[in-house]
Amino acid sequence: MKTILVIGAGLSSSSLIRYLLQNAEQENWQIRVVDQNLELVKRKLNNHSRGVALSFNALNSDERRPEIQRADLVISMLPAQFHVEVAKDCIDFQTNLITPSYVSPEMNELNDLATRAGILILNEIGVDPGIDHMSAKKIIDEIERNNGKLTIFESFTGGLIAPESDDNPWNYKFTWNPRNVILAGQGGAAKFIQEGKYKYIPYNKLFRRTEIIELDDLGRFEGYANRDSLRYRSIYNLDDIPTIYRGTLRRKGFCRAWDVFVQLGATDDSYILDDSETMTYREFFNSFLPYNEHDSIELKLRHYLKIDLDDLLWDKLVWLDIFSRDKVIGIKNATPAQALQKILEDKWTLKDDDKDMIVMYHKFVYILDGQHHEIISYMANIGEDRTYTAMSNTVGLPAAICAKMILNGTISMKGVQIPIHQEIYEPVLKELESYGISFEEKKIFPARLYGNDLQPWS
Amino acid sequence: MKTILVIGAGLSSSSLIRYLLQNAEQENWQIRVVDQNLELVKRKLNNHSRGVALSFNALNSDERRPEIQRADLVISMLPAQFHVEVAKDCIDFQTNLITPSYVSPEMNELNDLATRAGILILNEIGVDPGIDHMSAKKIIDEIERNNGKLTIFESFTGGLIAPESDDNPWNYKFTWNPRNVILAGQGGAAKFIQEGKYKYIPYNKLFRRTEIIELDDLGRFEGYANRDSLRYRSIYNLDDIPTIYRGTLRRKGFCRAWDVFVQLGATDDSYILDDSETMTYREFFNSFLPYNEHDSIELKLRHYLKIDLDDLLWDKLVWLDIFSRDKVIGIKNATPAQALQKILEDKWTLKDDDKDMIVMYHKFVYILDGQHHEIISYMANIGEDRTYTAMSNTVGLPAAICAKMILNGTISMKGVQIPIHQEIYEPVLKELESYGISFEEKKIFPARLYGNDLQPWS
Repeated sequence: MKTILVIGAGLSSSSLIRYLLQNAEQENWQIRVVDQNLELVKRKLNNHSRGVALSFNALNSDERRPEIQRADLVISMLPAQFHVEVAKDCIDFQTNLITPSYVSPEMNELNDLATRAGILILNEIGVDPGIDHMSAKKIIDEIERNNGKLTIFESFTGGLIAPESDDNPWNYKFTWNPRNVILAGQGGAAKFIQEGKYKYIPYNKLFRRTEIIELDDLGRFEGYANRDSLRYRSIYNLDDIPTIYRGTLRRKGFCRAWDVFVQLGATDDSYILDDSETMTYREFFNSFLPYNEHDSIELKLRHYLKIDLDDLLWDKLVWLDIFSRDKVIGIKNATPAQALQKILEDKWTLKDDDKDMIVMYHKFVYILDGQHHEIISYMANIGEDRTYTAMSNTVGLPAAICAKMILNGTISMKGVQIPIHQEIYEPVLKELESYGISFEEKKIFPARLYGNDLQPWS
Repeated sequence: MKTILVIGAGLSSSSLIRYLLQNAEQENWQIRVVDQNLELVKRKLNNHSRGVALSFNALNSDERRPEIQRADLVISMLPAQFHVEVAKDCIDFQTNLITPSYVSPEMNELNDLATRAGILILNEIGVDPGIDHMSAKKIIDEIERNNGKLTIFESFTGGLIAPESDDNPWNYKFTWNPRNVILAGQGGAAKFIQEGKYKYIPYNKLFRRTEIIELDDLGRFEGYANRDSLRYRSIYNLDDIPTIYRGTLRRKGFCRAWDVFVQLGATDDSYILDDSETMTYREFFNSFLPYNEHDSIELKLRHYLKIDLDDLLWDKLVWLDIFSRDKVIGIKNATPAQALQKILEDKWTLKDDDKDMIVMYHKFVYILDGQHHEIISYMANIGEDRTYTAMSNTVGLPAAICAKMILNGTISMKGVQIPIHQEIYEPVLKELESYGISFEEKKIFPARLYGNDLQPWS
């Protein structure tokens, strides 16, 4: 019997644990799950005979190490900064490790030790990063095998609301950590390269330089730039590619309305509002607007941000009750970002029967025999319910499938890795299809190149 | 004979040292000046019989302490973070200390020790902070003595170019540290209070919410908000004041044009530009603009920031050569802020015979016998040359005058202080007048209150 240790039983572990339990008999596994919250572990294990519920502080080395020693494979769902300590234990006890998080410089430095210990430390095996790597690298490798030369790579992912639950003017609800949504794009300019020119977008323009993406059956989306597009050039071995761009998807119209909050300064998390506890929503927004004894906040806002009377984004704002004289922030010493989160959580929280949706989209342009070819590849996955969400499925299943393939020898590579190798992505993508996580692929010839129009996002 | 030790002989010490030498015979002083650069000290002392040139590392405690022990008063012109160590030495040796810098929390904690040692540690005695405190507090105290109740206090200071040297479309040149000009307003929202309402302005709106200020003989200025207006409520004992606002002055039209750089992201100091060494000015600005194969950078910029064909700010941009295909940044691994500084230094550097100008403006509104009164108080000071600049005079003379008054007993208070006390501001402001640093005062009745118009800055 082989032993798998899962550290962390939060929202993102639901689908992971379910897969492991479903395969435990056949593969002869014992699944040991630890979390500070024992009740949570028990609920996820649901009395399964192959499951063992544990409760200890996984950050405490003395408590953690005996469990790592007895395991054949560890899946760490801890916050990213704690993975390195777990990885060192895994090297000591020659136990394989899987994490969904980005490879930190400290993690990268463990490559030699992991290789020498004969173990695999597989990172970035969730959805983004994870499925994005696998689905993109599969096509990039195909193009290269056919002697095509890749000239454009664009990639977007979004955590959205499923069409059947999409019932508000923002076409958006919180399907994941709300705080990350509020702070998205802060902390530095977005950076990418187009036609060989470096391009930089500051936060105050980020939500106005979106690219429109239309997917046949799914409708219209827009994408804003992620901060780190250039990182992927070296990871995918595309150092000479003239255009590479990664971004985040929202439904069409979201970003222009969100930009109202950015321009006002309502997403700022760096200072404390005076009087946040007793402030009404209306007073919160007034604190960012010029003073006038007589004029309404509505008119001041329209004038300040030049919002026309017939602009549809206004409906989005009104629907959020941002002008309410009754609703109160009610949080002591809140930052603007925390106050805004409170206002949005009133409206953007999932209802019990709501479902989420993950959409991923890649665009490739390459030159083959002197001609430009284009491939569009996209995936949409809808959650089952509020436990087995699309987010939980797309984050958890790749890690769970890899666990199986490492233990049964399908994946045999060693060292600190991410899933950009055919040995990993090919079988994982194939098995993901049986869970409804599959990509549509469309070839377009000749490729649609950038013409005379301004590229809004570039 | 009394001994004054001046630590630091840089640009801001010129007028300070000159004053001390001019008064040394009559007051029977020896002036000891230390700087790492001995030549600089010698030039400033100019072989004066009362001056002693020293060269050592003032950050080294063993070298510094004997000099502090032999002094009757120390003036520290070191960077702000080093004052506390000097202050501790001064407490040990019961030596008075003057610094032009803001009181840090650590400095504030030394109050009891300084009082017990029987010394005065006088801080914030330059121009801003310094002359602003003294000139404002003088009028605030007068209003309170007459039983007036202050309801509005606004205060602006600017380091500008003298009218006779004002020969460019920005009406601006670097008269002080260029880097501070580029980064001004970054690092957090500006915060103030108007009519009892807290107001917050994010960086991306800071240069568009300016107040226009017209001074009879000096023409039109505009002011943008400083970050820290609220701090002055408690310092000036104005905790209940409904409106308090502090800002920085520029010539009319500057801020709207500067905002072009802010909106582009060209003032960002948080990341490194790729290829900054070989980038032309034109390429630098293009890196913030959307990609297009055919359109000019000029048209892209006009369209992106909605700059009309007849907008005068365009002349300001063209005059800076921002569209030059020949001029190169030429700095390795430059941030956008560093690249922009290079571009501006080409054009905004003082010529040999240029003079600078400091302008300070206060507005007070108070209620007396049920009626609103207004006082405007302002000062403009023009530099003598590029050594004895207005900046050097207004920073150095208040500190030098205070040195005299501490040593001759006119100022007798002890502890960690700033110049908000009548005992200090009254004689200092009076003597500053003989150096041409004097305030015009205008009483306006009834006061001009905020009416129906939007207050642009509020």
